[in-house]
Amino acid sequence: MKVLSIQALTKESFAPFGDVIECAGAAHYPINEGTTERYHDLARIEPGDQGRAILSIFRGLASTFPFRVAMMERHPLGSQAFVPLQDRCYLVVVADPADGIDAPGQLHAFLAQGHQGVNYRPGVWHHPLIAVGAEGVSATLSDFLVIDREGPGPNCDEQPLAEPSVLDFKQT
Amino acid sequence: MKVLSIQALTKESFAPFGDVIECAGAAHYPINEGTTERYHDLARIEPGDQGRAILSIFRGLASTFPFRVAMMERHPLGSQAFVPLQDRCYLVVVADPADGIDAPGQLHAFLAQGHQGVNYRPGVWHHPLIAVGAEGVSATLSDFLVIDREGPGPNCDEQPLAEPSVLDFKQT
Repeated sequence: MKVLSIQALTKESFAPFGDVIECAGAAHYPINEGTTERYHDLARIEPGDQGRAILSIFRGLASTFPFRVAMMERHPLGSQAFVPLQDRCYLVVVADPADGIDAPGQLHAFLAQGHQGVNYRPGVWHHPLIAVGAEGVSATLSDFLVIDREGPGPNCDEQPLAEPSVLDFKQT
Repeated sequence: MKVLSIQALTKESFAPFGDVIECAGAAHYPINEGTTERYHDLARIEPGDQGRAILSIFRGLASTFPFRVAMMERHPLGSQAFVPLQDRCYLVVVADPADGIDAPGQLHAFLAQGHQGVNYRPGVWHHPLIAVGAEGVSATLSDFLVIDREGPGPNCDEQPLAEPSVLDFKQT
């Protein structure tokens, strides 16, 4: 099975798929008499036609590695943002659109640090949450704030992969 | 100067002012083949007429105590949510609407824990961010994810208080 190489998550490397939510490199300005810095408008939240942006918490069980990437999903009608609420890294797998067929193409894997969120643009194929546990703790649960869409119409496509891949990740 | 009593933040006690964003007591259901629990739609995000919900990070310097509460503000056109990104408590001060005058009335102070966010409803008078430092560390900076409104029209009223109050808080 193909082993995916894992690259560092940066605004540049992730740009084809959406936004990296972090202070570094973002426009910012002081507010509240200089006691607070506002890093402004870090993701393109798209609730889509007749939709509204909602805020939820996903509490995810840490994955075990090697991890089999056997399916992908996408939300055609709205964006979906994940922001970690504990300072723990996690993995992000997205896919290019495949030429001419309505299915995920080439996969790309990213290591997101605990201070980095991601926002998938509408229609971007991605793997569901791949949380990473706290070091040396089994069955860690990690919380992510999620901003996505509520509204009419089917907004989740799932697609099994004809050729699953593998993520081999070790905390260092 | 009047010393504000500080109460624990709960969904019930905060209900007149907005939402407490936390898993406890929220509707939830399993997703991702049972590896993740979704605590669904935890706050009423209101971008208002012609507005859109945006996502920013506020990086706030820890306040020092006793802290003088000398002004309040409100956002008449949209809601504003704060979710702490480090597991550190913070303080929330809101006000009842005053009878017959367009200014903050009776103040209420809450201690929010590091796993609790708040969402101010449009028009609710509140004090700007009052971050609490890490124990024993001076000049701590704390990050909060903020979901508020971008759009046309003036959306911030500020009001000095004729009679300032004091928050006296000690970490225990």
